[in-house]
Amino acid sequence: MSTSWRGFASDNYAGAHPEVLDAIVRANAGHAVAYGEDDETARLADLVREHFGAQAEVFPALNGTGANVVALSAICRPWEAVICAETAHINVDEGGAPEKMAGLKLWTTPTVDGLLTPDAIDVHAVRSGDVHRSQQAVVTVTQSSELGTAYCPEQLGRLADHVHGLGMKVHLDGARLANAAAGLDVDLRAITTDVGIDILSLGGTKNGALGAEAVVVLDPGLAHAVPFLRKSSMQLASKMRFVSAQLCALLTDDLWRRNASHANAMAQRLLEGVKQIPGITIARRVDANAVFAYLPRDVTARLQQHYRFYEWDERTGEVRWMCSWDTTPADVDGFVAAISREMGA
Amino acid sequence: MSTSWRGFASDNYAGAHPEVLDAIVRANAGHAVAYGEDDETARLADLVREHFGAQAEVFPALNGTGANVVALSAICRPWEAVICAETAHINVDEGGAPEKMAGLKLWTTPTVDGLLTPDAIDVHAVRSGDVHRSQQAVVTVTQSSELGTAYCPEQLGRLADHVHGLGMKVHLDGARLANAAAGLDVDLRAITTDVGIDILSLGGTKNGALGAEAVVVLDPGLAHAVPFLRKSSMQLASKMRFVSAQLCALLTDDLWRRNASHANAMAQRLLEGVKQIPGITIARRVDANAVFAYLPRDVTARLQQHYRFYEWDERTGEVRWMCSWDTTPADVDGFVAAISREMGA
Amino acid sequence: MSTSWRGFASDNYAGAHPEVLDAIVRANAGHAVAYGEDDETARLADLVREHFGAQAEVFPALNGTGANVVALSAICRPWEAVICAETAHINVDEGGAPEKMAGLKLWTTPTVDGLLTPDAIDVHAVRSGDVHRSQQAVVTVTQSSELGTAYCPEQLGRLADHVHGLGMKVHLDGARLANAAAGLDVDLRAITTDVGIDILSLGGTKNGALGAEAVVVLDPGLAHAVPFLRKSSMQLASKMRFVSAQLCALLTDDLWRRNASHANAMAQRLLEGVKQIPGITIARRVDANAVFAYLPRDVTARLQQHYRFYEWDERTGEVRWMCSWDTTPADVDGFVAAISREMGA
Amino acid sequence: MSTSWRGFASDNYAGAHPEVLDAIVRANAGHAVAYGEDDETARLADLVREHFGAQAEVFPALNGTGANVVALSAICRPWEAVICAETAHINVDEGGAPEKMAGLKLWTTPTVDGLLTPDAIDVHAVRSGDVHRSQQAVVTVTQSSELGTAYCPEQLGRLADHVHGLGMKVHLDGARLANAAAGLDVDLRAITTDVGIDILSLGGTKNGALGAEAVVVLDPGLAHAVPFLRKSSMQLASKMRFVSAQLCALLTDDLWRRNASHANAMAQRLLEGVKQIPGITIARRVDANAVFAYLPRDVTARLQQHYRFYEWDERTGEVRWMCSWDTTPADVDGFVAAISREMGA
Repeated sequence: MSTSWRGFASDNYAGAHPEVLDAIVRANAGHAVAYGEDDETARLADLVREHFGAQAEVFPALNGTGANVVALSAICRPWEAVICAETAHINVDEGGAPEKMAGLKLWTTPTVDGLLTPDAIDVHAVRSGDVHRSQQAVVTVTQSSELGTAYCPEQLGRLADHVHGLGMKVHLDGARLANAAAGLDVDLRAITTDVGIDILSLGGTKNGALGAEAVVVLDPGLAHAVPFLRKSSMQLASKMRFVSAQLCALLTDDLWRRNASHANAMAQRLLEGVKQIPGITIARRVDANAVFAYLPRDVTARLQQHYRFYEWDERTGEVRWMCSWDTTPADVDGFVAAISREMGA
Repeated sequence: MSTSWRGFASDNYAGAHPEVLDAIVRANAGHAVAYGEDDETARLADLVREHFGAQAEVFPALNGTGANVVALSAICRPWEAVICAETAHINVDEGGAPEKMAGLKLWTTPTVDGLLTPDAIDVHAVRSGDVHRSQQAVVTVTQSSELGTAYCPEQLGRLADHVHGLGMKVHLDGARLANAAAGLDVDLRAITTDVGIDILSLGGTKNGALGAEAVVVLDPGLAHAVPFLRKSSMQLASKMRFVSAQLCALLTDDLWRRNASHANAMAQRLLEGVKQIPGITIARRVDANAVFAYLPRDVTARLQQHYRFYEWDERTGEVRWMCSWDTTPADVDGFVAAISREMGA
Repeated sequence: MSTSWRGFASDNYAGAHPEVLDAIVRANAGHAVAYGEDDETARLADLVREHFGAQAEVFPALNGTGANVVALSAICRPWEAVICAETAHINVDEGGAPEKMAGLKLWTTPTVDGLLTPDAIDVHAVRSGDVHRSQQAVVTVTQSSELGTAYCPEQLGRLADHVHGLGMKVHLDGARLANAAAGLDVDLRAITTDVGIDILSLGGTKNGALGAEAVVVLDPGLAHAVPFLRKSSMQLASKMRFVSAQLCALLTDDLWRRNASHANAMAQRLLEGVKQIPGITIARRVDANAVFAYLPRDVTARLQQHYRFYEWDERTGEVRWMCSWDTTPADVDGFVAAISREMGA
Repeated sequence: MSTSWRGFASDNYAGAHPEVLDAIVRANAGHAVAYGEDDETARLADLVREHFGAQAEVFPALNGTGANVVALSAICRPWEAVICAETAHINVDEGGAPEKMAGLKLWTTPTVDGLLTPDAIDVHAVRSGDVHRSQQAVVTVTQSSELGTAYCPEQLGRLADHVHGLGMKVHLDGARLANAAAGLDVDLRAITTDVGIDILSLGGTKNGALGAEAVVVLDPGLAHAVPFLRKSSMQLASKMRFVSAQLCALLTDDLWRRNASHANAMAQRLLEGVKQIPGITIARRVDANAVFAYLPRDVTARLQQHYRFYEWDERTGEVRWMCSWDTTPADVDGFVAAISREMGA
């Protein structure tokens, strides 16, 4: 591939949006108190309250795994556990960090589309008070999910009510929260604060930042623990202004939505293009910036010589195509043409 | 304080050097494979081999606590322990991360100047093979130390030989390795590779980066574990190119030395200035970019109304003044004048 | 219930066999070196070699959860994981100890009968070398299983070969190893050493001891770590002679087999009796000392007023009846009559 | 040494008192509900309330390290730490279990005699609320201490008040609580409940049990967590009646005091005997059942050919002689004569 290229492997492969870079450069003036007592972090706190409501408290973190582990640790006592989808990032893609760093037991449940249902949760909402069972204390949902699907606000609200009714809290892994909100055409709070989410991991990196995530606490009772857990979990940035500045940029002038909507639109364009190609089956609903499809193995292999993307499931031939804030219509059209060609269409 | 100010609280309060920012901007072109398979990280690997020797392997990490915990975990088996100075950052300033995240037992030893000696190590080099005692497996040294002192190469070499003779490994916490090397006027490898350090945490953040640290493995036998530990320890950056680019900038055209030498020179200027003021006792040797002094409490209080710096020890009145890559001679002179004024000189 | 009663709730409800108590009394003469350097523990080492082969090393532990966690920790490096059945004791009945104490990630797999198959293992034998996935390093099987079933030697041998072929080790949770061996009418080594098990948890408590378990290492490469892990995992008995004496008693004059065979025979008697009662469905194969059946909820409730046993699955009405070394034919017959009565037969 | 011998190495080398064995035999009738819902454990709860006061709750555990870790975990949140003496068992003799199993950071402090003072605690009662420092939440005292000394009730009361005034809790490691109470000629509650101890580890093993320890909660706010922590910390006995029966025996007819007083008296006899021997220096106050003395190395070596005891400090030649419930006056007199002989007196 050439020095400067774009593919469909991951929104983590995209670079930083110019407005994010500008914010970093602007933040680089003189000294600033380290570890969060700086102007950028103060401004971020205001912006987060604007977007998530007056009770929201924000704690910048260093990566998504870190934000998830800190947030879940703020809820779980040492003998407690997390209910999650089998496909959840914390289960399959965090190197065991929840178990290894925080001692979190995960009760996993299969899903058809990466989205949890009350019934799926009920399977693990058993043996409360039984010391032999690691006690479920929190349900984590990913929005948008690892499979490119999103919960609508009503669905999320019903789920949160159900979880609360069982005496548990709800954590939301929002590594792609922006894509979900953009796809649903709602505000960030409509799928978090307003539906009863207690704590969330707010992602910036996949949506145009260099590397910036945060824990956002919506249940004020959980806020006390987070600063301590963030530090002991090795997620506290010393020059925090540079992390906060990135998140500020995303929350300013709706950059978060502009980037996410664009990525989603590119995914729809890709979906529409690919749908026309005979022999390809779209594997999942496209609610955000990912398209999943079943492709013949040889087609995948040939395509990957020119385009980066992941085979999602070796056994079924399912592939994942991610669009990002910087994907262009021409990128999509070129890719569709290449797929079409390789499919012999 | 004004919007743009500089103080003497911490090298973490300083911003990023323009060459570092430029490197980030340059790295922001098109897509790059996430998690380290990018060009910047490849270039960093070359630069690290140049500076530390052909066997050196580099693994960028997100912060200093993370780099330390990953590096120490690469050595210690679950029943093993770390010998360190009582004043070591891992003991007093990492929120218990070594114990809490990695289960590392710390055997601490008092020192006069933050530097370990063979005798101090011997105190803990006991009961080998006794299951009742968490088995010491590694000695960690900080260079330059948390007290502004540095080991000279011979001292470090003798220490490493002693540690190896006891069957242990040596880790070096190099959050301020550049300041030590600059102060000693030696290359980076002269106080790491050449003296027998097995693994080190290489700091960039305090020396002009936004946020960039790395684990550098010098004993090849330790390299296999690091990628897995880095991920499960929540220290793996997705858009790693932006972390690597910062470290590349520091290792290019000797920026690391230019920044560190300047900070050290400012500390010497401050030392010289303060020495002239009657009633002030310099507390420690100044080998790097920190000056420690005993100050009357009321003087400290009045000074802190205009200048940021830390009281190091409430009981003795010892204060710490850190210089950074961006401290100016005028900053120092103004501060010396202010101290002098408050001391009634 | 009267002061002295027997039920069908658990083999943990049964007391200690007189020969075990005698052994404890005999061991209580004068002083003995603590922590395992005593004559009883030396004798146990000999007995374990007799039963499991010359390479076997035994490390007494305090309970079954402890033995499992120590054994699995001896295999897994900090970033590694365990494959187990969803119904495995380590997954559902150890309060999260594997995750919380040892940071072990569990990759669980559904089974029809509590027994793993090569195919079930293959589902998790993926993404080897991928740092984002906690790396599977060991498969744990329970023999006899939590559902009262047992692997035959050939089945276990094929499974072990398959696991070894994938580069992993095999751990056997033998809390009821005696019941499996008695049920299969084989020696202990026939379903451990001879089929390629690498390490096992040997249970004594459920088979007539007061409280005595052990880690038995069959792969000599794993032995070094166990003494250290046992201590740091809080499983080292100070007056170990009293734990070892119990295990010695079980391994002497085939007490282990006498106890287990009796319990199994009582389960068969119960099975035969219950089979005759119209309206009861036997839920699972009876290979050891447990009988599982589906019972109408009201029948269960009425029976439990006079007999202790557990409802296994609230949703299906499945119940578990355990027989123990001290269950008498009269106990069984009385119970069958009571069930029959309550079923209105 | 002969098959049946007694030495001065450890109270863990002694066997079980006949009344303890009798209690076990008596407890062995029919079935009993596992995991603590049995008659013996209920009776233990009554006895503990009698001895420690109405609010006391008891949770039997499997060994002393386990009881300590569970008790401390009941106090500390994941970012919190424990203040202890450098010589504390949890620091030097538990294989790192506090750090490795519970993530507990230990802030250690040197002492002259194994006993903490308010001043020693104050050294670590700093930086409250500072996330960079693992936050001290509990002070643990050992009574009687690892050096054979004991706090008097007033001393302990003042210490507890001081600790509470600092917002922390007090844990007491009572592996030898009986020896302290016997030595001070007070009830168990006089040095626990009545002086403000919040939670304690109650030892039985060293005082005539086979293996029986317990967590006793005196601050009711801490009780909720203990059952969960005990299970996940692998300290829950299945056939708990046999652990509880041992503790019941010790708390019945003052067996605890009879055993401990006897051991203490033997230590005093040994002290008096040794004092007469020229050339031996007694190293520490003898408040309980341990005598520490400085002995020439060659004398130690010759004595150890016939008597088991530990060299406590290789560097100073200090040795430890422990008496137990079964030490006889003749044992002591014979040992004194042997020492005298070897000293050439």
